[in-house]
Amino acid sequence: MATIARSVRKELSNLIPSQEGPQNTLSEAMRYSSIEGGKRLRPFLLVKSANLFNVPFQQSIRVAAAVELIHCYSLVHDDLPAMDDDDLRRGKPTNHKVFGEATAILAGNALLTLAFESLNKPDRGIEAGIRCQLSQKLAEAAGMKGLVGGQILDIGSENHILNESEISQLQQLKTGALFRFSAEAGVLLGSGEAEDLRALSNYADALGMAFQITDDLLDVEGQQEKTGKRTRKDGVAGKATFVSLLGVESARTKAQDLIETSVRCLNRFDDRAEDLRKLSDFILTRTH
Amino acid sequence: MATIARSVRKELSNLIPSQEGPQNTLSEAMRYSSIEGGKRLRPFLLVKSANLFNVPFQQSIRVAAAVELIHCYSLVHDDLPAMDDDDLRRGKPTNHKVFGEATAILAGNALLTLAFESLNKPDRGIEAGIRCQLSQKLAEAAGMKGLVGGQILDIGSENHILNESEISQLQQLKTGALFRFSAEAGVLLGSGEAEDLRALSNYADALGMAFQITDDLLDVEGQQEKTGKRTRKDGVAGKATFVSLLGVESARTKAQDLIETSVRCLNRFDDRAEDLRKLSDFILTRTH
Repeated sequence: MATIARSVRKELSNLIPSQEGPQNTLSEAMRYSSIEGGKRLRPFLLVKSANLFNVPFQQSIRVAAAVELIHCYSLVHDDLPAMDDDDLRRGKPTNHKVFGEATAILAGNALLTLAFESLNKPDRGIEAGIRCQLSQKLAEAAGMKGLVGGQILDIGSENHILNESEISQLQQLKTGALFRFSAEAGVLLGSGEAEDLRALSNYADALGMAFQITDDLLDVEGQQEKTGKRTRKDGVAGKATFVSLLGVESARTKAQDLIETSVRCLNRFDDRAEDLRKLSDFILTRTH
Repeated sequence: MATIARSVRKELSNLIPSQEGPQNTLSEAMRYSSIEGGKRLRPFLLVKSANLFNVPFQQSIRVAAAVELIHCYSLVHDDLPAMDDDDLRRGKPTNHKVFGEATAILAGNALLTLAFESLNKPDRGIEAGIRCQLSQKLAEAAGMKGLVGGQILDIGSENHILNESEISQLQQLKTGALFRFSAEAGVLLGSGEAEDLRALSNYADALGMAFQITDDLLDVEGQQEKTGKRTRKDGVAGKATFVSLLGVESARTKAQDLIETSVRCLNRFDDRAEDLRKLSDFILTRTH
């Protein structure tokens, strides 16, 4: 995991060079919220899925960096005063606290745009048809049918109690879409079969849902020092989560069930999927 | 121009269907700032450039709609309270005035993302290699080396007097990049020659600069009823423009010179470029 995180860091640092002059603020704001930090779960998932199909690392890491750009942009915008109004992210002041609201909005926009710029570039030997497919699918996962659609539900959910199926839908859009894209991208890059795609999609769906539940559990039980972000904020904002709806114990059981489901989806890949099984374990037992 | 505007409207309306349920707010906010209105100058420029190379209309209009999505997103975000804080756009209340700040940010993000989703789709018979090139170039024009980069200069320019070369740079990024992309996209779609690309790039650069100057002139001299947006706002914000720097008369002369330059760039296309010549005339004489 640390190796892939280092490679993502290097990719992102190359994609966002520090600029001289008046553009410096923009590049620094973009770097501030992308180069350091984060567990880089989506890149790990993507690279390890691609490894099942012997995809060259320089190709999978390119796509992994694009996914991480989208993830980082979404965090910058989610933290904005008009959204969740958060002060702390990855143990540091949020982007807008450091650079101001206007620059934070623009830095997010530039990170989002850069994902598609880099994904469409020809220099890693990924076939043009596959680059187009990946870009289209990443845009779907990021846009109104994915991340943005989930965020709209999320801001509408404060002080309005969602039921379990609504929370499921919110989570599918807000977290699930990028997890699923990451797993599917490996199959696309490696020209896997339809059965591989189905298995890894199901794996990612279960994993993403489990991730969201453990995230909610950490929000209730975690320590701010370890999670690096403000905890207990969902309760304060009156947001319904799996935990507020099911209670801590049932939520934990649900997460365990989902992790078991995710591991079962990997059966067809035998020993080659060992790192993805470890990822499932990590999601369940993480403390940050 | 009206014909192309109608086709853009139809494309955008198909790309952004009204959603039922909680997603309705997002789709309505996206539609509010994209389906109606605007002169659709960039789509016109793109389609007419593509016509020089006999590109099928269903292909050029697809790319034109993507450019317009980027343009519309940038207007929604430029108008935000954290940016220019504008109340009026295209004769209507701005997006955040109607839908709130959070939804306006998200609608902008979704419009931006949708541009890349649609541009990478295979259904119009545009070769995958060309779709990738177009997406990469559009992302460059929209991102830190284009629109977003220009907006960072713009928000830094309030109450700081830019010189003519700085204003030129700002304009190249903020307006020029999308104009240039629109003209170049026609050449890419139609597999034009390097000389064609150079001619149309130069055309678009001169046209874009003239457009910005006439925009500044309208801000000083125009009537709010015709322009559909708040006028005299640059002066109030202390923003340097070509007009504040050169004065009205010299700015008008500069715009005329640029329009003459733009028309000269079209010589190699003979009569086929008549509509682009009319576009140049329109830019110079427009009252809105």
